[in-house]
Amino acid sequence: MPDPALLARARLLTAPDLAPAVRDGLAEITGRPWTAYPEQVTSGGPDGGPDSGPVVYVGATRPAGLPEEDLLWYHSVNAGTDALLAPGPWPAGALLTRTVGRMGARIAQYVLAWVLAECQSVPEFAAMHAREEWRRMPSELAAGQLALVHGTGRIGSAVASRLRACGLRTVGVARTVPAAPPPGFDRVVPAGGEAEREALGKARWVVAALPLTPGTENYFGAERFGYVRGASFVNVGRGATVDLAALGAALGTGAVRRAVLDVLPSEPAAPGDPCWRLPRTVVTSHSAGITADDDVLTDFAACWAELRAGRRPALTVDVGRGY
Amino acid sequence: MPDPALLARARLLTAPDLAPAVRDGLAEITGRPWTAYPEQVTSGGPDGGPDSGPVVYVGATRPAGLPEEDLLWYHSVNAGTDALLAPGPWPAGALLTRTVGRMGARIAQYVLAWVLAECQSVPEFAAMHAREEWRRMPSELAAGQLALVHGTGRIGSAVASRLRACGLRTVGVARTVPAAPPPGFDRVVPAGGEAEREALGKARWVVAALPLTPGTENYFGAERFGYVRGASFVNVGRGATVDLAALGAALGTGAVRRAVLDVLPSEPAAPGDPCWRLPRTVVTSHSAGITADDDVLTDFAACWAELRAGRRPALTVDVGRGY
Repeated sequence: MPDPALLARARLLTAPDLAPAVRDGLAEITGRPWTAYPEQVTSGGPDGGPDSGPVVYVGATRPAGLPEEDLLWYHSVNAGTDALLAPGPWPAGALLTRTVGRMGARIAQYVLAWVLAECQSVPEFAAMHAREEWRRMPSELAAGQLALVHGTGRIGSAVASRLRACGLRTVGVARTVPAAPPPGFDRVVPAGGEAEREALGKARWVVAALPLTPGTENYFGAERFGYVRGASFVNVGRGATVDLAALGAALGTGAVRRAVLDVLPSEPAAPGDPCWRLPRTVVTSHSAGITADDDVLTDFAACWAELRAGRRPALTVDVGRGY
Repeated sequence: MPDPALLARARLLTAPDLAPAVRDGLAEITGRPWTAYPEQVTSGGPDGGPDSGPVVYVGATRPAGLPEEDLLWYHSVNAGTDALLAPGPWPAGALLTRTVGRMGARIAQYVLAWVLAECQSVPEFAAMHAREEWRRMPSELAAGQLALVHGTGRIGSAVASRLRACGLRTVGVARTVPAAPPPGFDRVVPAGGEAEREALGKARWVVAALPLTPGTENYFGAERFGYVRGASFVNVGRGATVDLAALGAALGTGAVRRAVLDVLPSEPAAPGDPCWRLPRTVVTSHSAGITADDDVLTDFAACWAELRAGRRPALTVDVGRGY
């Protein structure tokens, strides 16, 4: 928790690619000017004074040369913070918060949209229309089907809530099973146990909403896909939680019916990348949870207000766990 | 209401294209053999006896030569019965019931699927995937948007319920405004009034779920589309309720953003039909409410039980109103 006295006199540094409206909003919230970093901060500092003293940073990466010893608080414009934690140990004592915004609602809508698009053959009808073909195709009712959602945090819970509101049954998979299922889940089963394996075999939809941690890398590999019996797979978490070769093999045998991947182990995918050739798959260019500018400002303002009141922000990232 | 004594000895005639499982199911429910009509019934009748006596018919059309003077009860395998009522006056005293099945759930899912497909650019992402293009596109959050649903019967109510469960605001439009809004509707406004015109201008989605009656033919014409300001239009009712030329003009000016048409004034549409050239439109070949075989049996069995108990079936069609 930053010392309120230090916070009061901290400089506001912002990533150089932040939208002007966001920078101005941050300046208004904190009552001090913003300085783009690394563009403007030189050895002399923006106001000619020494380039030192406590720093609040708002951005998406840890730019080289960021004075981490002076870092009081880093607010991430994204919800996923693995890119911030990967480069090395997080500076001791520095608070890390993140933008969640309406990301839960956005990602939940994304999952439901792709579930229903498959049930209603949306891409197929669009293609038939283009070739002027009239052909009746029945739909598949999603209500009553089983969706298995891996990750029961804010995003997973939002996804499950949206699916359940549409009549699906929802089972969560978590490393640690909470005493009561989070909102949206009928129940939660432990990752790696018999209950998960059984659910993988019965599910019509397997949704991945996992953060990237050492424990979740290649979480969806040959072993897990080996239990799937015809489910479609949707990844809205992190790309590296999925072993794409194992997914490709499961798609090849039909164990996995279709796949919708918003994220990939390596992004962006260039033309010719093998991901484009996975059978019955759509890749959606990491678009599911694009945060709007006002999401960043809203969440930053909430953190700012909590810090000024001496409270730990609800959007604080546990840098040990990675989310 | 058919006389129970006549019903007890009525012949069971079925349309020749009914699935074998449906025919056998109908025979089981009624405890008598089925006879395909017009295929098998000749002047001598299927059992060699006279081709007369009370008739129960299950099908989708009024075949030429159907002994309508003997028609006790006609059960439609479809929900829409305009094709049955159009050929001429309905035989006096003949009961008409229809299959609704899970049609409400199916059509509601169809509408939500296409709403979310537009919000999430599903067809566009499928096309980008096909050309191996990585491009981030933000989504549009449907929650909070206004959907105007024309028709507040079973289908309209199911559609509104599904949309509202996804966070949309729902206003119904009805010829007669009920005392309390049916399930799924925030409120209902009268067709043709100022409240409807105002709602047309504010709606993000205009959904048509109207039966075809003399009063609804070309209901969506130049006048109504003239009030629309950027809504997308979805027709899950009957094709002839929409003046396609007026829709095309409204799409041309952008007043109507996009259109999804499950039904057309004239079906099926051949290649080269002008409907395929409407801008930003998808035609889905009358697939939204395809009834499953078990829907027909379930609804017929319910009607049969009600009739045997001397009650008017809940699925009875008011042949004067046409639905």
